[in-house]
Formats: sequence, C-alpha cells, structure tokens
Amino acid sequence: MKIQLNPTGVLNLLSQLEVDLLEQSTTDRYRLFRNCALAVLNVGSHTDSSAEIYDSYKDFNISLVVRERGIKIELANPPQTAFVDGEIIRGIHEHIFSVIRDILFICQRHHTMHEADPRTITHMVFDMLRNANALEVNTDPNMVVCWGGHSINEVEYHYTKEVGYQLGLRGLNICTGCGPGAMKGPMKGATIGHAKQRFAKPRYLGLTEPSIIAAEPPNPIVNELVILPDIEKRLEAFVRVAHAIIIFPGGAGTAEELLYLLGILLHPDNDKQQLPVILTGPKESRAYFDEIVTFVGDTLGPEALEKFEVIIDDPALVARKIKQSMQDVRDYRRQHGDAYYFNWTLRIDPEFQAPFVPNHDNMAALNLHLDQPKQLLAANLRRAFSGIVAGNVKDEGIRAIGQHGVFELCGDPELMGKMDALLSAFVTQGRMKLPGTAYIPCYTIQT
Amino acid sequence: MKIQLNPTGVLNLLSQLEVDLLEQSTTDRYRLFRNCALAVLNVGSHTDSSAEIYDSYKDFNISLVVRERGIKIELANPPQTAFVDGEIIRGIHEHIFSVIRDILFICQRHHTMHEADPRTITHMVFDMLRNANALEVNTDPNMVVCWGGHSINEVEYHYTKEVGYQLGLRGLNICTGCGPGAMKGPMKGATIGHAKQRFAKPRYLGLTEPSIIAAEPPNPIVNELVILPDIEKRLEAFVRVAHAIIIFPGGAGTAEELLYLLGILLHPDNDKQQLPVILTGPKESRAYFDEIVTFVGDTLGPEALEKFEVIIDDPALVARKIKQSMQDVRDYRRQHGDAYYFNWTLRIDPEFQAPFVPNHDNMAALNLHLDQPKQLLAANLRRAFSGIVAGNVKDEGIRAIGQHGVFELCGDPELMGKMDALLSAFVTQGRMKLPGTAYIPCYTIQT
Amino acid sequence: MKIQLNPTGVLNLLSQLEVDLLEQSTTDRYRLFRNCALAVLNVGSHTDSSAEIYDSYKDFNISLVVRERGIKIELANPPQTAFVDGEIIRGIHEHIFSVIRDILFICQRHHTMHEADPRTITHMVFDMLRNANALEVNTDPNMVVCWGGHSINEVEYHYTKEVGYQLGLRGLNICTGCGPGAMKGPMKGATIGHAKQRFAKPRYLGLTEPSIIAAEPPNPIVNELVILPDIEKRLEAFVRVAHAIIIFPGGAGTAEELLYLLGILLHPDNDKQQLPVILTGPKESRAYFDEIVTFVGDTLGPEALEKFEVIIDDPALVARKIKQSMQDVRDYRRQHGDAYYFNWTLRIDPEFQAPFVPNHDNMAALNLHLDQPKQLLAANLRRAFSGIVAGNVKDEGIRAIGQHGVFELCGDPELMGKMDALLSAFVTQGRMKLPGTAYIPCYTIQT
Amino acid sequence: MKIQLNPTGVLNLLSQLEVDLLEQSTTDRYRLFRNCALAVLNVGSHTDSSAEIYDSYKDFNISLVVRERGIKIELANPPQTAFVDGEIIRGIHEHIFSVIRDILFICQRHHTMHEADPRTITHMVFDMLRNANALEVNTDPNMVVCWGGHSINEVEYHYTKEVGYQLGLRGLNICTGCGPGAMKGPMKGATIGHAKQRFAKPRYLGLTEPSIIAAEPPNPIVNELVILPDIEKRLEAFVRVAHAIIIFPGGAGTAEELLYLLGILLHPDNDKQQLPVILTGPKESRAYFDEIVTFVGDTLGPEALEKFEVIIDDPALVARKIKQSMQDVRDYRRQHGDAYYFNWTLRIDPEFQAPFVPNHDNMAALNLHLDQPKQLLAANLRRAFSGIVAGNVKDEGIRAIGQHGVFELCGDPELMGKMDALLSAFVTQGRMKLPGTAYIPCYTIQT
Repeated sequence: MKIQLNPTGVLNLLSQLEVDLLEQSTTDRYRLFRNCALAVLNVGSHTDSSAEIYDSYKDFNISLVVRERGIKIELANPPQTAFVDGEIIRGIHEHIFSVIRDILFICQRHHTMHEADPRTITHMVFDMLRNANALEVNTDPNMVVCWGGHSINEVEYHYTKEVGYQLGLRGLNICTGCGPGAMKGPMKGATIGHAKQRFAKPRYLGLTEPSIIAAEPPNPIVNELVILPDIEKRLEAFVRVAHAIIIFPGGAGTAEELLYLLGILLHPDNDKQQLPVILTGPKESRAYFDEIVTFVGDTLGPEALEKFEVIIDDPALVARKIKQSMQDVRDYRRQHGDAYYFNWTLRIDPEFQAPFVPNHDNMAALNLHLDQPKQLLAANLRRAFSGIVAGNVKDEGIRAIGQHGVFELCGDPELMGKMDALLSAFVTQGRMKLPGTAYIPCYTIQT
Repeated sequence: MKIQLNPTGVLNLLSQLEVDLLEQSTTDRYRLFRNCALAVLNVGSHTDSSAEIYDSYKDFNISLVVRERGIKIELANPPQTAFVDGEIIRGIHEHIFSVIRDILFICQRHHTMHEADPRTITHMVFDMLRNANALEVNTDPNMVVCWGGHSINEVEYHYTKEVGYQLGLRGLNICTGCGPGAMKGPMKGATIGHAKQRFAKPRYLGLTEPSIIAAEPPNPIVNELVILPDIEKRLEAFVRVAHAIIIFPGGAGTAEELLYLLGILLHPDNDKQQLPVILTGPKESRAYFDEIVTFVGDTLGPEALEKFEVIIDDPALVARKIKQSMQDVRDYRRQHGDAYYFNWTLRIDPEFQAPFVPNHDNMAALNLHLDQPKQLLAANLRRAFSGIVAGNVKDEGIRAIGQHGVFELCGDPELMGKMDALLSAFVTQGRMKLPGTAYIPCYTIQT
Repeated sequence: MKIQLNPTGVLNLLSQLEVDLLEQSTTDRYRLFRNCALAVLNVGSHTDSSAEIYDSYKDFNISLVVRERGIKIELANPPQTAFVDGEIIRGIHEHIFSVIRDILFICQRHHTMHEADPRTITHMVFDMLRNANALEVNTDPNMVVCWGGHSINEVEYHYTKEVGYQLGLRGLNICTGCGPGAMKGPMKGATIGHAKQRFAKPRYLGLTEPSIIAAEPPNPIVNELVILPDIEKRLEAFVRVAHAIIIFPGGAGTAEELLYLLGILLHPDNDKQQLPVILTGPKESRAYFDEIVTFVGDTLGPEALEKFEVIIDDPALVARKIKQSMQDVRDYRRQHGDAYYFNWTLRIDPEFQAPFVPNHDNMAALNLHLDQPKQLLAANLRRAFSGIVAGNVKDEGIRAIGQHGVFELCGDPELMGKMDALLSAFVTQGRMKLPGTAYIPCYTIQT
Repeated sequence: MKIQLNPTGVLNLLSQLEVDLLEQSTTDRYRLFRNCALAVLNVGSHTDSSAEIYDSYKDFNISLVVRERGIKIELANPPQTAFVDGEIIRGIHEHIFSVIRDILFICQRHHTMHEADPRTITHMVFDMLRNANALEVNTDPNMVVCWGGHSINEVEYHYTKEVGYQLGLRGLNICTGCGPGAMKGPMKGATIGHAKQRFAKPRYLGLTEPSIIAAEPPNPIVNELVILPDIEKRLEAFVRVAHAIIIFPGGAGTAEELLYLLGILLHPDNDKQQLPVILTGPKESRAYFDEIVTFVGDTLGPEALEKFEVIIDDPALVARKIKQSMQDVRDYRRQHGDAYYFNWTLRIDPEFQAPFVPNHDNMAALNLHLDQPKQLLAANLRRAFSGIVAGNVKDEGIRAIGQHGVFELCGDPELMGKMDALLSAFVTQGRMKLPGTAYIPCYTIQT
C-alpha cells in the first residue's frame, strides 16, 4: 500500500543536494529519517517500546519524489492510525516535515557537534529552534513547559487537562515532550481554553529527540515540533524556552527532568533567575509528591526544595500563580537585556550539556555518592535516570539490555536505598511503562 | 461592582442614534437587551429556568459609554462565571456584541415583520445571518447542524463529543442551538479534531432566540452567535444553513425540531432536496430512538421514516456518512443554481414560518387529530412541543403557567396516547429539565 | 459583445429580493444602476460631459445572473478601457460592486431621506460609510482629503503627485472625489510613497455621487469607493472623515468645496475644531491662489482667511505640516470623546445639509447679496458654484441647459463682479472643462 | 549624529555568536557589512562611483546593540536621503536587514565556496534565495527579469515605467539589479499597475552584489533584496528565477548580461528551454538596438539572434507577449518536473559560473578571438564587459585603474573593432556613467 503526500512546508523548497541526502537508503541518516517518520505516523500506538514498534513495521518505507511544485513524500505500508478515511491527518503531515527539516539541519549544519564548546552548543539549540520558527518575537513571556509521565492514570490525566484548560483561559501556551499522558493532557485542555478566549495563534510546542520519539509519538495537537539531536539538547531547549515549568506525576523520565532542572537552578549564577516551578497533581497523587520531596530533600538538600512549590488539586490556583509570575519573568529579562523568547542568561554547566551515552559501562561508572557537590550529584543522578529511561523505552537501550542484561548502578548504600525506594514506588504506581504490561526492571542497584 | 468592556466589534462603529436606541432604559427594547446580555454572561449556570435567572440578577445592569475609539460597555453586578481572574472571557465578550448587533438589526430594519409575506421572512432570516457574517462564501458544503437535549446524561454527552471530534477530523463545521449538553459536546469535540487538522477558520455557529437564551446560554466556544427574533426564524435559519443534520437524544425541544424538519421535508417540492439527517446516540440510548421512530411512524407514516437514518454507537460512521454526502449536497446546489451557504430552494410553507405564541388559548386550540394532511399534522405537533418547551424553561411560559395553571392539549385519543407515552418517556429519562430538579409537567393531555 | 464577471464582494451575498430590485429594467433605479456602472467602466474617458458619455454607450447593458456561488454580472457592449487583454481590471470590478452595494443601500434603507432631520442625515452619511467599510477603527488620524480640479495642466498634475508621494512617505492616506486630475495625482504619488514605506493597508478613498460619476469616473487606484446619494451628503462625508484637507487648483467644483468648508468652519461652534486646511500648488499656479484668496477675503472676510494656509511649491512642507497637525487632531478628538474615524462634533447647519436642486428657478432665486450673515452667504455661493458644475458636466444639468438656455445668476453688482472675475479666470486657465474643448459658459451673470 | 533602529526581521533572532561576527570592527567582514549598509542608506545618490561614495562617508559607522526584544542597529552619521522627517524609510530599514542576513549567511554557511563544484554553486544560489524567502511556491510563473542601464535618458526611463505598468496590469512581478534607471522604472510602473489590479503580494525582487551595491543602491520599492556574493552568482540567480527577461537600453553592464544569457542559451542542452527574451525601448532608441543586433550577429552568429526578439515602442505588446508565454514556461517546467520558482534544468557551464576577477592581468589575458566556440566566445566577451563595469563604477576597479592605468584588451582586430564601435556608441549615448560627468574610458583596445 502506497500513499503520496503533497509537498508543503519545507518540502516545497528542497534543493537537489538535499533530496539526495535523504535518499541514500543505506545510510544511517536514511534510517534515522525513516524511523522518525514512522514514529510520527504511529500516533496512538499502544506500546512504548521503540524496539517493538520498529520490529512491527519492517516493511514501512519512505521516499521522496521530485515534482514541479516541490517534493512529494511516498509512504509504503504506513501505520493506519495517521489517516482519516484514507487521508493523512494534517497535524501528522506537518510533523513529517518537521522531521525532514530537523534531520537536514543536523546533517548540514551541525555534524561536527561532538567536540563543541558550551557556547556553540547553546548556539546550536538556538539555531534549531529558530530554524523551526519556534522562537516567537514580540510576545510577552507566556510559554509554560509541562513535564510528567507518559503513563499516568485516568484521574491524573484528567487533572492535566484541567490545568491545561486553566492555562489556556489565561492566554498561556504549552510546551511538552509531546508524547501521550501528561504531555498530551495540558495541550488538549489548553485547546479548549484558547478557543474560548479566541486565542489567535495558540502554540503547542513539542520538543523531542530521535531516540524517544517512537516510544512517545507526538500527539497531533502539537503544532510546532522540533527534533533535537539528543536528550541533553532537548533538556536545554526546554529550560531556555520556558517562562515557567509545571511538573505532573511521572516516572524515571520526569525524575530526570526534575534533577536536571534543580542541578541548574542550584548554580549560584542562576540565583536571581525568574523561573517559577510548580509540582502539581490531583489529591489522589499526594503520596507521589511526598516521595519526590523527600528524595530531593535527602539528596540535594533543603535549598533545592526552595526552587519549586507543590500545589495539590487546584488547577485554577496553579494557572493563576503562573500567570502572575509572568510579570516577574518579564521584568527580569528586561533588566538583564535578555530575550523573552530564549533565556540566554541561564547558566548551564558542561556536565549538563555533554551527551551521556547510557551503555553498561557508563551506567556502572556513574559516581553515585553523597559526598560530592550538590550540582554534580544532581548531574549524576540525572544521568542514572536517563539511562533507566533508555533501558525502558528506547530502541538502543532495550536492545543493549536484551544482549547484556540489566544495567548495574552502584554507589553509597544510603543513596542507593533512597533511589531504590523511589524507583520501586514508580513501578508500583505503574509509572515506568504503559499500563497493560508488567514492568521488568532494566536495572539493578548494587550497594 | 462595575466592569467596563473595551469597544471592539460592532461597538467600534455605532452611531449616536443607535446608542440612544439601547439606552432608553424604560423600553422593552432595553429590557430585551439587558436580559440577553445577562443570559450570555450567565454561562455555566446550573438552572435552566429563565424566570429563576432573571429573578436572581435583579441588580444586574448594562449601559453604554461613548469614547473616542468607540462605545464601551459598563456592566453592574454581572455573574462571575463570565470572568477569569477579573477579566471577561473573550468568547463571552464577543457574544455581548452579537446581542447588540442583532437587537439593533431587528429594531432598525425588521420592526414590521409580523405582517410579512413568506418571501420577506426568508429575506429577513438571510439578512440577519449575512449581517452577522454567518454566511461563508467560496466554501464547499460543510455545515453540520447538531440538535439534541440540553439535559443529557454523561454517556450521551461523551458520545456527542466523540461525534464532534470525528466531524472535526473531517473538516466539518458545527452549528447548534448553542446551549449546554448536546449543543456543546459536538463543538468541544470538533475543536480538538480541527486542531489536529490545523483547520484554519473553524466555525462553531450558535443560533438562538431571546426567549430561550437564558435557559440555554451560549457556550463560549460558539464563535458565531446569531440571535434570531423567534423560534420559527431560528428553525428556518437552521435548515437553510444546514448541509446535514444530526439529532442526538433530547426532550421536547428536540422533538419540536425533528417534527419541523420532517414537516418540511415531506413537502413534495422538497422531494429531491439533498439534506442528510442522522439520528444517533450511544448504545445505552437505543430505547430512546426506538420510541422516536415509533412515534414518527405512527403519526407521520412510513414516508417520514425515509427522511432520516438511525445509527447507534458509531461516531466515525456518522461522520463518514455525513462527509460522503457533502458531494451530493454540492451537486444538487450546483444543478439548481442554489447557493452553498443558504438553501434558497428549500420550500417552507407559511404554517412553519408563522410565529406561534404558546399561550393557554393557542395551546388549547391546536388541531391534534390524525385526519389531516401529514404536513399540517407535523406543523401542529411542532407547535404543541414548542409550547411545552416554553412552559418548561422560557420566562413568559413559566410565568403564564404560574398564573393560569398547566397547558391543556386535546385531540384524538389515539394521538394523545402516543404523545403522552413519548413525553412520559422524556420525563423518566430526565430529558425535560436539567438534572437535580424534579420535573413538574407544564401540560396535561385531555382525550 | 458580452462579458460575465465572477461574483465576489457584495455579489456573493445578495438575496433574491435584492436581485429583483436591480433587475426591473424599466425603473429609475435600474437606470441609475446602469449609468453608474457605465461611468465606472468608462475610466480614462476623454470627455467630461455625462450626457455625451451616456449618448455614446446607448447599447451598453448590465444584468445579474444567479449562480451557486453568488450573482454574476453580465455586461453587454461595455467600454473597452476597463479591460486588459479581455479581462476586467480588478479595481474597476470592485467599483461595480460598490455601485451595487450603495444603490441597494439607498433604496432599501434610506428611501425616505428627503424629509429627514439633520441628525438622521448625519446618521445616514455614517451608515453608508460604515456599510462600505470605509470607517477604520483603531487607527490614529491619517486621512487627508485632497480637493482640486479634474482639469489641471501637466505641471499642476505632477505637483499633485509629488504632494501625494510626500504624504505617502509619512504614512498618510488619501481621500478624493475620485476622478482624474487633482483627484488622481495624489493617489498615484501616495502609492509609490506607501510602497517604499511598506504601508500594509493603504487607503485610497473615493467619494462620489451618481450625477458626477460619469464626468469624473473613479480611477482604479481608488480602493474604497462610496457613492453618496447627492453632493450635499458627499460633502458632509468629506468633512467628517477628513483629518486634514488639501486644496489644489481647480474650477467651479473646487470653489464649491472651499465655500462649503469655510461656511462650516466659520460657525462659532466649530471654532476649536482641529481641521488643518492647506491650499497648495506649483509656483506656476501662484496667480490662481491669489485670486481665490482675494475672492474669499472680499466676500467672507478676513476671519475666513484664517481658516486655511497657502503654501506655494513645497510638497514636503505641505506633508510635514499635515503630519505634525495629526497630533492636534488626535488630542482634540480624545478630549471631546469623539471618534477618530468620523467627526461627530463638527457642526453642520441645515443650509449646508439640505439638497440643492440646480434648476433654472432655483439658480435664479439664489440670494447673492453681501448683506447677509457670512455663513449664509457661503451657503448660497456654494449653491451657485454647485449649479455651474451641474451645467458644465452633469447629465441633467447639461440637458436642462440645452433645453432652457443658460442659468441666470443675479445679485449685488459688486459680488457679481467678483464672481464674474473668478469664473472668467477659471475659464481662461482651462479649469472648467477637460482640455481640447472650448468652454461654453452655462451661466450668465446679471447685475 | 546617532540613530537607533528598532529590531525587526532577522535582527529579532540573532544569536550571540552571530552578533559577534558582525562586531569585530577590524575584520574584512565588518568592512563589507558597513559598506553594504552605507550603500543601502545612500539611495538617491547622484554619483555612481563606489570609491567616491565610500570616501564621502568616512565617518559613517554601524554597530549592533543587544536588547530584550532583539538587536538594535545604531547608525552614526548616516546619509540623510534615507530619512523622512528623521525617521528611516521602512523599505531601506528592511534592506539593512537583508544586508545582515546575507552577510551572515555567506560567512556562516558558504565560506568555502571558492573550490566548489558546479552543483554546489547552484545549491548555494538556491540556498541564499531560499534563506531570503525569495522563492515563492504555489505560484504560477510570473517573474520578469528586467535588465538595462542605470544611466538612461528621460524618454527611456519613462518607457521602462510604462512597460512596468503594463506588466503590473497583467499580474507579473519584477526582478531587477535594483539600482536606478532601467532597474527602477519597471518597478515604479508595476506598482501602479499592481495597485489597480489589487495585487495582494506584489514582488519587486532586487538582486545585487557587494561590489556594485554602492554604485547602484537598491531603490526602496524593492521589497525583496538579496545580496549574492559575486556577479557570477548574481547572474545565475537572475536566470534561474526568471520566467522571462526584458532588456532595456544600457551600457557595459547590460551588454555583460546579454552575453551571459546568450552564452547559456546557445548550449545545446538548453535548446528546448522556454525563456522568452525581449529587447525593447522607445522609438528614439532604435539605433541602440540596431547596434546590439549587429554586434551579436557578427560575433555569436545568426543562431544567437533567434534567442531574442526586439520590440520597438510598444509597452503593451511587450507585456502581452510575456504574459502569453507564461503558459509555455509553465508547460515546460511541468513536463520536466522542474520547479516553477527555480529553473534547475537550465544548464550553466563552469565558464559562466567561475568567478572572474577583473584585474589588469586577467583582463589582458582574455581570449578575444573569433575562432573559438561561440559559447566560449560569449563567456570571454562577458568577462571583458564585466571588467569594464568594474573599472567604471566598482570600488576596487576604480582604485586599480587609478593605480595601474586603464585595462588593456587585445584580440582579433576584427572583433576588437566591433567592440570598439559598440563601446564608443555607449559612451556617445551617455550610457557608461550617470549624466553630468564626462566619461573617461577605463580601458583601451589593442589590435
């Protein structure tokens, strides 16, 4: 079964050199392109195992066809979830263009990134967002990054929609990791709120990366999709476009995000930064937040607890607080001559920028002891959770675990005990994987 | 407590003569203006009794203030549901302008309507829709009128959202009577579908009238609101803008709409008209449709049953059928040189156009016998249900019942028996009034 | 030769009643419609005699054809100047819609105008401009009315373009009587100025009336055309939309405009009005302005001379002064709570509003004596010049002169002498009629 | 005198790395940036000597200032011609952004161009046009490239405006080298034509290069300005965006353009290309075209004469022919699957792509003999005229001539004689330099 998609967006204007780049079907680049396109088409999928998805669609294929009005895309055997009565959903159509745009960008302009200095890395993050038209000028601060699990229960999901609705009523935009669960709920809710407020150009910004996109396919409400090259640049993009951050319940990925954020905010240079952070959920999820707070307090100390606020079961209050704080964000940026659309002045140290490859050696080598500076501890804990996410849902991670067995984490017995407790709670609450699958841990904790 | 609303929309451009028209606060016109504005502000209200609403907000007031950039509105003691953190929801703000626009229109241009001939009445309906920018040219047929009760259960409400979502995914627009329940669900669902399809200018058209607006306040998603002067012109507007009609479960009002529609479609001149009609609901509502089908078959005969289709529990099928039929609608209009945006060729006879005043005398005088032409029977049954709606939720109706007791309906014992059965079912199913109130019938059936 | 024009603009949305209004080809209304349409098509014509134009195109015909997407216009034997390679120029296409819009408006809404009180007349002028979308809200004052002759020489024409260019560079819009000469030059110049300033929505507003439109067909740059019912309402529209007025050299029509304006500005209630008036022309036209100044000073007195300024040969200075005065206009409107887009507070007395029919009796009966209040004298002089314009170029006027001989004007010998001198100068300078025709006076002055 | 320009366009979104690139004021890059900005501001200049302009504005300076909403530009001692009442003309403001955009583009992405292969050069030309949003998709062929002299007489200038007007009336867009004379006239004329046709998004595309921009500053009507790195890429951009080419009278630069074009069109691979070429001028310029035709016929032979048509004194015919040929262009592109917005299939050989540096050695070494393939002869003649343009108006050329004396050209006596005749005619007709200056030849012809 073959389907052709008409050229629009970036495909109107590809040069012949660029078409060639995407057509050499034996290259890694082509495989990346094909896999990302497949992930985007596979919306509404009922598995979050990247490996399983790629295995199910072995006969899927994508190619480019040159025409007088631009380049057509030809899909062979695509997943049917992307289509309504045989026609592709326009939102998904656009996501495929985003994939092409960002892959071309990475391979043309930033192929020598691995040796880059911090300043160049930040420039690259900026450059990719700019190239994706994801930096909006002449707008006051209004972008709320929402983090949280892809696997949350019905009550929590409904709560994320309600928060999104209240944010939308206040003219705030939403940015998420663009998968299901807590990444989709706020956008759906905001869509209704924006409609009631006649919000002319609502933004539903999704930031993802090639290795997670299959496990967490962008929901089609996302109207600006950017595929950053790796999790570190994705995290940097989140915190530099955010004017506020809301964290809903989630699993290892959400813990990774929180630790990354706290590690940065604890840097003395960021002391005056205005970046409101609210952890929130329905009253049924109160226990979850207690565990998080305890873990953070025990590991990063009380000063880390001052960097965020916990609000239980009050969507309107969450939205109202965020809205009010936008004035502070604005004042801060203006005083420091910083752009509204990109937080240049936020200090991000190299240990948060450098890519961490979550293989068995790197995981085993992580320094997980309490007697190190808080910021380094945060960076290492972030890496540990990052590796667990990889082992849970990312293609390479799953295959590595399949081949070499589970990751081994070792360190301070005390710290290890706390991690174990937190991760066990995630497992019990069903936050590690989509419901319907028994979770088999991809790690073991040594003490 | 006073709130001023900035001029936008029609208020930018009022002449001094027009401001005067709305300011003479002792006139009926002012009362109409005030009540409609109150109704629009009172969104999310938990009662559907117009009388009760007007009684609760006796100290509400609205006035106009002239400024250099247009006319400001000043509200005294408005309902708080219309505001978010002290600012009016923009959708509601727009609804107030629609109220002003349509009241000025009626009092300036069509004050001599009562003696009008059929052609002039149709022109007036057209003229009001045009003046409200509710006729979209250069667009293929895509307007789906959704009828159904304001008081439906959770399962049915969720079903209407799902149908709306499937319609939205197919690029179809929604028109309803713009209150809660089945009038809101399809619009909410379509909003999500339209967002996924990047539908640039989605239309959520609400058609209402002054006597029902308080009981069924427009939900703020409605982005085109038109207040027709009476139920007959509102019904004519519905059928002339519709390219298809979906009927969800409902009570007396929905029955009125269905009878009106069938009465018109049974006219021989409308035999070739392309106007798909689908009755649909979740599987839990199957009994409801069985009753409706029986009643229609018994009273208007099998030819009436051919005018619509019943689909149980399949939102995607409903939407797919509607979408496919748009081609037929288009072909028919083109063949007959009729506009896409307004069905001029639909024949509507005087008995469906003439306003019916539902007072005790008129209700008692209704000819409710089976031995009359089907079309006239449909017209009279329509009037009977219209009167019951008035007695249930409209201000004047409620007050009349309060003063003179319930309406008396009399006619054929057989017919009366069928009506009684249908209405009793509506009562049992909680379709006559919003939940939480015991329903006290406003009528009695004599045989 | 027949040509069909596709429906756009107002023709998309005509009701059947309205189509009928324009189709009864024996009515006066139809004749008016046909003649205005002909005038609009006859752009670039080399005669300014309405009678001659109507006589040359006796076989021209216009009719409406109903189609599914709106109403098509069918033209039989139209003037070829309106077409490029067989396709109508879009600007002229739009002008035909304006004709239809305004004729329908007049015959539907304001057919009982003759007995109207001043307030209702002003409302009607406002209503017509609003209906034509010619009132722009949310814009600071920027509309410059330019008056001047349709028959001016090359040097003067180039000067009007240069002034328009300088106005356009300063973001100012242009409103004229929309014929050739001084009515076209400023718009052409402003078009270039606006293009250089990337002015997104430049406005070239043309105000005309049925009896002059053939003699002075709207140039296609006019992008908002309004056909007011008579010269008095046209003049009122000019002064109420103007934020400033520039007067270039011209003949009897320009004199009429200046006298109307001065008559109004001399009213004590208008003493504080901010409405800058500049008379300007190239150095070669200095004598013209000397004559005007002398005539005004001698008849309306020195206080009238204070109402305007004369600037010779300095387009940039004219534009700079106008631009600077916009701030005063804005302040005045704001202080008085008056709209920017329509000068409600300008007092216009009945003698300037009441239509003057320029027939032989009325012309002969004009009170042309110096011993009357300045304001009444201005009103009567305005009427005298108005009659001369009619006799020169308007259809009815020309036919009346043909039948009954020239108009007789009588009054004070002194005043008559001054008028004679002024009119003779206009004749000598070729300002009464387009070049190439010897001017035969349509009047005689009795003393 | 310092003036700050608010950030808009590209300046909203510069990264800190990029700001640094433009601020290191000792670099060649900075000098390039400053000189181009100066050239753009110096519109309406009365000299075409780049050297003279740079010398007159030695105290001009430009710098960037970082602000929260983007980067401001600060100008010290700019030419006053760019300002109206102290505010910069918006068109010129935009041109400065184009300068910044293109200089950043060249130095970030294509700094290694000199060794590029033909395919990469074409990709670069495409990439720069795309980056400048100068490739319009979903539009039928409509871009008319107009070539001709910056120094033409009044009659010729008026003629170029008239041709532009006729093109504009037919909905065609204009692309020129964006200086004065024949590069400005067609745009001015088209602006009026477009206004009459309500052309929503008229395009006035200017293609220039750093070494010519000062001598031929872009007129502010140009609403898309692209600064290509050198004359060869500029010429390639012209022929690949062109759907038709009109050549007005001109001097050495126009001869260069014609020879480049004919050299390419004579390639057998381009035999079927649809690219209409019309040489046109007023009847007073007939002799000019006779000379050109003779020179081309004598050097490149009769097959070269078949590549273009000469039309004397008929602007409407020129425009009509161009308009009609658009259908052929469209058919050709569709048949060959080529884009409408960029002529990928046009074959351009390396001798037309490789940059020619017009220094004394290179000029002297040119192979100017008749006994070489026509295509190579065209390439060499093109280089000879290119060098003469440099010696006439470009900064480096003028300074080189000042230092080393005039260029020496040598070759076939016969060919040299023809060149001499042609160049002498240009001198006599005042086409080599702006009027008011005696032309001192920058070359000598050896035989």
